[in-house]
Amino acid sequence: MKIARFSHQGAINFGIVDEGDLVVLNGDPMFAGFDTTGERVPLKAATLLAPVIPRSKVVAIGKNYRDHAAEMGGEAPAEPLIFLKPNTSVIGPGDRIIRPRQSNRVDFEGELAVVIGSVAKNVAAADAASVIFGYTVANDVTARDLQKSDGQWTRAKGFDTFCPLGPVIETEFDLSTSTVETRLNGVLAQSAPLTDMVHSVPEIVAYVSAVFTLLPGDVILTGTPAGIAPMESGDTVSVEISGIGVLENPFV
Amino acid sequence: MKIARFSHQGAINFGIVDEGDLVVLNGDPMFAGFDTTGERVPLKAATLLAPVIPRSKVVAIGKNYRDHAAEMGGEAPAEPLIFLKPNTSVIGPGDRIIRPRQSNRVDFEGELAVVIGSVAKNVAAADAASVIFGYTVANDVTARDLQKSDGQWTRAKGFDTFCPLGPVIETEFDLSTSTVETRLNGVLAQSAPLTDMVHSVPEIVAYVSAVFTLLPGDVILTGTPAGIAPMESGDTVSVEISGIGVLENPFV
Repeated sequence: MKIARFSHQGAINFGIVDEGDLVVLNGDPMFAGFDTTGERVPLKAATLLAPVIPRSKVVAIGKNYRDHAAEMGGEAPAEPLIFLKPNTSVIGPGDRIIRPRQSNRVDFEGELAVVIGSVAKNVAAADAASVIFGYTVANDVTARDLQKSDGQWTRAKGFDTFCPLGPVIETEFDLSTSTVETRLNGVLAQSAPLTDMVHSVPEIVAYVSAVFTLLPGDVILTGTPAGIAPMESGDTVSVEISGIGVLENPFV
Repeated sequence: MKIARFSHQGAINFGIVDEGDLVVLNGDPMFAGFDTTGERVPLKAATLLAPVIPRSKVVAIGKNYRDHAAEMGGEAPAEPLIFLKPNTSVIGPGDRIIRPRQSNRVDFEGELAVVIGSVAKNVAAADAASVIFGYTVANDVTARDLQKSDGQWTRAKGFDTFCPLGPVIETEFDLSTSTVETRLNGVLAQSAPLTDMVHSVPEIVAYVSAVFTLLPGDVILTGTPAGIAPMESGDTVSVEISGIGVLENPFV
């Protein structure tokens, strides 16, 4: 099931994607379940928004594909490498990624994002599925120059607009047959099977929930494969995960 | 004016400290102003809680006192060094700081905390006071071993219970005559005038708000002076900022 958050005629709602329509839901399904209002909105008439606004954390994992760790000049770490992006960095499909004046090089990083659905602490990898609400697509936008000069990655990855999420949350997603592909102005730049992750989603949920209490609506970005590159003003970047959808954003 | 958040007879409220009493407020004064209910609760009968729960970010500044940068083996950076602590790490006065099994060395770091009161982006240093709601005391608890081994500081500083805040928010605070002092089991470990900060509060607010949009309730920790040290189970750590109060927490 694909869940979207959308605006239509001035109202913001959640809906289930059903062919060309959105079946409107009574409230946020993460908390209110899947009761429908009976209303349908044509997808083409709706503006999709980020499908989740984290109340607490966007946790991200660094260097979780070997070929990306290599292009960054290192190896994938033995344990997941955790950093945080603030919820103020989240934007939705079609929203503009804005280059901050502090940076001269802003890169895309296409990633699978895990959306947490329940309070979770010290979850075993075998139980990870029980705390996952669904999956969406993310772009872990990074000011590459500041990432290097600061040492700590917080500023480089935390600017407003640096965490596009969407277009939908897929609640029944099988990553074993799926790929992540990033295109810059339509040209393929990143392509990898999601099974190339060094640390799997259940391992990551276990590791992260042993550090932080995860709250409903928290998002975990699972790392990017090789092929990251800078964007120039006027570019359009799209991240596609088969089985979920395409997250496209302009860069200015 | 000193604002507390407290529980009393099963209810959680905000109040203004007035001699030995709390004058109960109608709602969170950051959003609802300072209307009082007419009720008074004796301070001794109330349990003080963290005076703010950040909806978005706890931003922290690394190495903002020269003597602490030196004890960490370096110099204070030319620009503020930003990292994030998640809101799930926040606890209140008297709450236990819990050592995670992943770490063998957990240190205290006493700090002044700035509580943001309004939406703020690209605030000039000269205008910083207009977006500050008040000041409180913080302990930037750090798993020193993991800080070194991870490189990124997120895990080491982000565990549950690693951000004690309190006991109150002082809305009329003059840091120019104030000191931060940390005591471990009553023995003085850290002591510095707040004017020893390398980057001042207005400079920090300007720098941070040029990266992130700050939201009401966001908290900025302004760095710790020299004297950090590990805690052992059964220890009590207290951080005192003259003019605000004493934040005391047991460590287990």
